[in-house]
Amino acid sequence: MKPTLIYSVAASLDGYIARPDGRIDWLDAIQASSDEHSYHAVYDGIDALLMGRMTFDALMALEGGWPYPGKPCRVLTRHPHEQLPEGVSMHHCTPIEALTEQAEQGHQRIWLVGGGSLAGNCFAAGLLDELVVSVVPYVLGAGIPMFSSGLERSLRLHKQRNFSSGVVQLHYQVLAENPASAAL
Amino acid sequence: MKPTLIYSVAASLDGYIARPDGRIDWLDAIQASSDEHSYHAVYDGIDALLMGRMTFDALMALEGGWPYPGKPCRVLTRHPHEQLPEGVSMHHCTPIEALTEQAEQGHQRIWLVGGGSLAGNCFAAGLLDELVVSVVPYVLGAGIPMFSSGLERSLRLHKQRNFSSGVVQLHYQVLAENPASAAL
Repeated sequence: MKPTLIYSVAASLDGYIARPDGRIDWLDAIQASSDEHSYHAVYDGIDALLMGRMTFDALMALEGGWPYPGKPCRVLTRHPHEQLPEGVSMHHCTPIEALTEQAEQGHQRIWLVGGGSLAGNCFAAGLLDELVVSVVPYVLGAGIPMFSSGLERSLRLHKQRNFSSGVVQLHYQVLAENPASAAL
Repeated sequence: MKPTLIYSVAASLDGYIARPDGRIDWLDAIQASSDEHSYHAVYDGIDALLMGRMTFDALMALEGGWPYPGKPCRVLTRHPHEQLPEGVSMHHCTPIEALTEQAEQGHQRIWLVGGGSLAGNCFAAGLLDELVVSVVPYVLGAGIPMFSSGLERSLRLHKQRNFSSGVVQLHYQVLAENPASAAL
């Protein structure tokens, strides 16, 4: 019983989720602009988090401490360490192993926080069920792409929210069929 | 008197405007799905076209002949040739020279059709006024990026249209200020 894996991420209009070095400071203006955090809109509906190490490090570098207290979070890394915020654990395992363990703990909906490399791996492995992209009114010009797998896939637009900050949040279902034969 | 330059382009959700080799066959399903061509929604409001050579070649390779009869079109290329559809001319000049000549011919609103390299040059030169991105429900995984300039810029969401195909068309104004100091 694989849980539903949702990749919810803020991206620049040109499809980048972070600067080349992983920084996400260009999101500060958006996050400060409104109480309705488009970036976190999916947050209430999920049971647990999954992320890669670079994303974890970028989040830990933010002012204000760990931004996701109270949600169980698995960080995939080759080099686990011990000093972690409460609820966070590090694992050297595959995404499907992590998801299986999360399902065993009763977690039905998992938010794949990032980064692009892990998202690409999950995407390529057919593990990604939903895609929520908060399109930020910003051109970044260069950075870490939304997916790094090179894989093609058709999507179905499920719903959409607009925010006063100019962020447009697009929620897609990932279609299973071969894109070459897909009728959109 | 520089005309208003509008970059209107269909992009995959992950920010690519074409496959690495320039092909846009992944748009076929979208273009066939509806009479309301999101890809062309800006078309009626513009006076003339501007594009790069790879975009021209890709459009010429489409079935059905030249898709923009009746609109004056300038193609920027280092190697102009003569056998062109009616209304199309090739020029070896800079974007600002092309725009100046188009303004002299009374063209007020110019559609920058593509590609990413020319759009990046225009963007970097501060020539781009509006950005209309038709976000196609498709992950391409790799391809020609929306901009190849590496330049950062804040945008203001101006309006938005949704299409039955799942395409979401986002229309932005390009803000002039330094992105580092911009409040979005």
